[in-house]
Amino acid sequence: MRLSKLVSERFKELPAGVSAKSHSLLLRAGYIKQVANGVYSLLPAAQKVSLKIQNIIREEMNKVDGQEVLMPVMMPREIWDKSGRYTSIGQEMVRFRDRNNHEMLLGMTHEEAAVHLCQNTIKSYDQLPCMIYQIQTKIRDEARPRAGLLRVREFTMKDAYSFHTSNDDLNQYYEKVYNAYERIYKRIGMKNVIAISSDNGMMGGDGAHEFQLLVEAGEDNLIICDNCDYKANMEIATSKIEQVEFQDEELKEIFTDKAKTIDELAEKLNKDKKQFIKAVCYAISGEKDKVIVAFIRGDKEVNDAKLKKYLGVNDINITDISETGLVKGNIGCVNLGSDNLIKVFDLSLKGQTGLICGANKEEYHISGVNMERDVEAQSFIDIAKVNEGERCPICGKPLTIKKGIEVGNIFKLGTKYSKTMDMNISMPDGKKMNPIMGCYGIGVGRCLAGIVEESSDEKGIIWPKAIAPWLVYLCPLRNDNKEVEEISENLYERLSQKFEVLFDDRKISAGMKLTDSELMGIPVRVVISPRSLSQSQAEITIRETGEKIMVDLELLEDTLDKLLKID
Amino acid sequence: MRLSKLVSERFKELPAGVSAKSHSLLLRAGYIKQVANGVYSLLPAAQKVSLKIQNIIREEMNKVDGQEVLMPVMMPREIWDKSGRYTSIGQEMVRFRDRNNHEMLLGMTHEEAAVHLCQNTIKSYDQLPCMIYQIQTKIRDEARPRAGLLRVREFTMKDAYSFHTSNDDLNQYYEKVYNAYERIYKRIGMKNVIAISSDNGMMGGDGAHEFQLLVEAGEDNLIICDNCDYKANMEIATSKIEQVEFQDEELKEIFTDKAKTIDELAEKLNKDKKQFIKAVCYAISGEKDKVIVAFIRGDKEVNDAKLKKYLGVNDINITDISETGLVKGNIGCVNLGSDNLIKVFDLSLKGQTGLICGANKEEYHISGVNMERDVEAQSFIDIAKVNEGERCPICGKPLTIKKGIEVGNIFKLGTKYSKTMDMNISMPDGKKMNPIMGCYGIGVGRCLAGIVEESSDEKGIIWPKAIAPWLVYLCPLRNDNKEVEEISENLYERLSQKFEVLFDDRKISAGMKLTDSELMGIPVRVVISPRSLSQSQAEITIRETGEKIMVDLELLEDTLDKLLKID
Repeated sequence: MRLSKLVSERFKELPAGVSAKSHSLLLRAGYIKQVANGVYSLLPAAQKVSLKIQNIIREEMNKVDGQEVLMPVMMPREIWDKSGRYTSIGQEMVRFRDRNNHEMLLGMTHEEAAVHLCQNTIKSYDQLPCMIYQIQTKIRDEARPRAGLLRVREFTMKDAYSFHTSNDDLNQYYEKVYNAYERIYKRIGMKNVIAISSDNGMMGGDGAHEFQLLVEAGEDNLIICDNCDYKANMEIATSKIEQVEFQDEELKEIFTDKAKTIDELAEKLNKDKKQFIKAVCYAISGEKDKVIVAFIRGDKEVNDAKLKKYLGVNDINITDISETGLVKGNIGCVNLGSDNLIKVFDLSLKGQTGLICGANKEEYHISGVNMERDVEAQSFIDIAKVNEGERCPICGKPLTIKKGIEVGNIFKLGTKYSKTMDMNISMPDGKKMNPIMGCYGIGVGRCLAGIVEESSDEKGIIWPKAIAPWLVYLCPLRNDNKEVEEISENLYERLSQKFEVLFDDRKISAGMKLTDSELMGIPVRVVISPRSLSQSQAEITIRETGEKIMVDLELLEDTLDKLLKID
Repeated sequence: MRLSKLVSERFKELPAGVSAKSHSLLLRAGYIKQVANGVYSLLPAAQKVSLKIQNIIREEMNKVDGQEVLMPVMMPREIWDKSGRYTSIGQEMVRFRDRNNHEMLLGMTHEEAAVHLCQNTIKSYDQLPCMIYQIQTKIRDEARPRAGLLRVREFTMKDAYSFHTSNDDLNQYYEKVYNAYERIYKRIGMKNVIAISSDNGMMGGDGAHEFQLLVEAGEDNLIICDNCDYKANMEIATSKIEQVEFQDEELKEIFTDKAKTIDELAEKLNKDKKQFIKAVCYAISGEKDKVIVAFIRGDKEVNDAKLKKYLGVNDINITDISETGLVKGNIGCVNLGSDNLIKVFDLSLKGQTGLICGANKEEYHISGVNMERDVEAQSFIDIAKVNEGERCPICGKPLTIKKGIEVGNIFKLGTKYSKTMDMNISMPDGKKMNPIMGCYGIGVGRCLAGIVEESSDEKGIIWPKAIAPWLVYLCPLRNDNKEVEEISENLYERLSQKFEVLFDDRKISAGMKLTDSELMGIPVRVVISPRSLSQSQAEITIRETGEKIMVDLELLEDTLDKLLKID
């Protein structure tokens, strides 16, 4: 490819309003162009990378006996009604009516379509296990698209669905795919990917892993124990609760004046924050009348994701309680009326005594709270956020928090979809069963951007060889010089027989060319200049290490062969 | 691939309500499954064919310097407002509002997105010509999806867009793509494809070709001259108007009683149908008050497509005129009031004399109509349908009508999009210009189905080798026989090293296996049976010709090599 003809443009300046490194570099190096908020066109260089990633994914899916299919983006409401997800999924699902006023939707995932495809197509136990997958455009109307390709509203995704006759069989196959995912990340050149247990979320089922690329730009918080194997997404992570004990006393109303936050109260009463019961109020989106009051130990914070999961809702928000009769800053769990209130208690409060909570009236709190004695029987559940330094729930050593980008996920779905959609297979004994399913996703664009986050420097992108859009950046300097021009044109011809070459045939300054080659991230640069030609040589620079090698022109292919070999 | 594990099912019976051959065969042979009206899932076998077609298209697009990109399916209204197509395209475009109430649409074509991508990315004349293309899902909410994959609402399409500095350059490039298309059809194994001039339709611009696969199931009517090179879609085809001459007379009202149709009138008055002026009334969709009256010679019919194009509207319908004051069956062009009427005259009436038209009152017509003398000055345009046997407009020989499936189209767009979207490039003299564009489409699914229409027999599909899902159907008969089983398992292993093999490992009757192999259309079948093994041989059957060859087992690879070579 001649760079003079490549549909692309490069920029020196950091684009305005862009913070993620990959977003900035992909824009600056001419890989992507924004069409709408969270919607991008891939320019030719990016599409080349994307296709290479897709092919690696395809190869690995085929290795685990995946059968490639293509399900539609546009689906009728009916098949999603069966699973209940037409109504349970929120605004991120695009819904519209077709010209005949039929309710349609755009797929963000394809469990229902996969069951539809396999239903009556697979009928007997001896056709299982089987897995179908597709590489396809997904539409997901994200509330907050951000960071270029990292969180978008339209993306290319590989999604796969497997069917099994037993949990054992699912577990075995799940592990195969787990291993295939590890191979995929390795092959596309990602270095720091870890698999962690995660929440099944809207997929349903009982067991899931996320593959997280550990980079600073990650928006997921991961709780990791460096001592043992414990790893979990903040959304579901737990820690060992630090035990505390306060003297059991009588209940007593105490004047606390204007002190309302835990910090203010702890200071005013000169007590440990752990002795207080914090109350946090939430509203459920779309359910105006209900208020949730979450009670938790004063030193801890509520993890919204855990609370949502417990409540079985898509969205909750910290709410304004001015019209509820609750007294802001003085809410307490002793004698709290329960009309329209859902009370939730964190595990950290279980069995505790001598605590202090709000008195449900202005300027007063109550001390001596004994949870068992003074608070109506409640179940205690884990709704606490884990903080850095808390103790690992497995080994008790301090936990650390890392940032990650979710670059893939795999789920054990169980029979949620096969049951609700009434997919049956015949077993050897003649009985019917709903097959047990797994599903396996990987976002192509997010992998592409994730690699740029992980593999770049202040000069630009550093593409791993397996997915680089071109492997060789052929860069004549001073190509107003006739010898340089002739030899580099010949070399372009010659090298293109063996390698993917981007030929910088532009008649511009040496500085601009070298800068662009680094910005675009091509693994190997071959410079031809009057100086190098005086020795019948070319200067090779390895993008990743910056290492430079002078090579005789006739040895160029051999040298490149060695340098570009993928281990 | 083991057939026992292939996600697919085959049926003997013709599915209910299915008429097109490709629709029936693709369903019966386990290639597709319907998800909604005009929306299908591709099962693994079909996706394999689709990917092979896509790769051939990709190779040919790369050969004409195409640069593959990916533009979004989901686009914001704004970029389509610039070209005016957000409003000018009808209900076939899916429109919806996103969660922020922003108006969005789903792409059925990508001229606007292509200009958006190249705008400011290509800035200078020396970057041209250039062409970008993508292979992508398109959504088009067809009013009447039909015939399986032949007319659907969601499909995979290759669409390409080129940019030029002059019409000469566009013309040259257009021819290159024209040739690339011919290579594509040849390579994927289509035999009877012809290119014909066509209407630019909603694309705009000045010049277009359709590639039409000539098969009975085609829904396009093509007018073809077997003598010269004249070929055109019925929508724009013309013929030499057969000259007629009638005596010029005075206008005279004649009593015609209940005779209203041209047939009734011709019989009653004992005149040639050519002597009458037929009136056809239309309404424009969405414009309630306007009535179009099209006048045409009595022996001819109105071509709606030509009329729509002349009027510049998407849709017209023959209308009920009961409330307009027009007298059904007696409408005439002499002294016809023109409130809310748009009158259109076909070329066949130009300069004619002695004609008979309605008198605009019940039971009367007028004879002696001299178009020039009696009808207010009007322009005459061609709105006539061409009938089989009419004369070629070029050479005058009789025209024939053939049925075709449009499997591709190419358009000279001119500057319609670059101008309205204000895309500029700098020319050598420093001036700016709007680049001249071409666009080039090819539907992957329609090609797949078209090939089945063209290449099949009463037993099933006959895939061309270049796109067959598998090349060899390995078919052990009596695989309850230990020797057959062992040898065929070994052969499966051996042949899979070199060929794409579908291994019919099912333990079912010979008849069912042989029937399925023919239905699925795999080019070569290799049968291993106790009888063939008694001679250490396999029986090869060529699907296309039915030819059978007995081959020694050790010569199998060599023989298959020869048989499967693509010329």
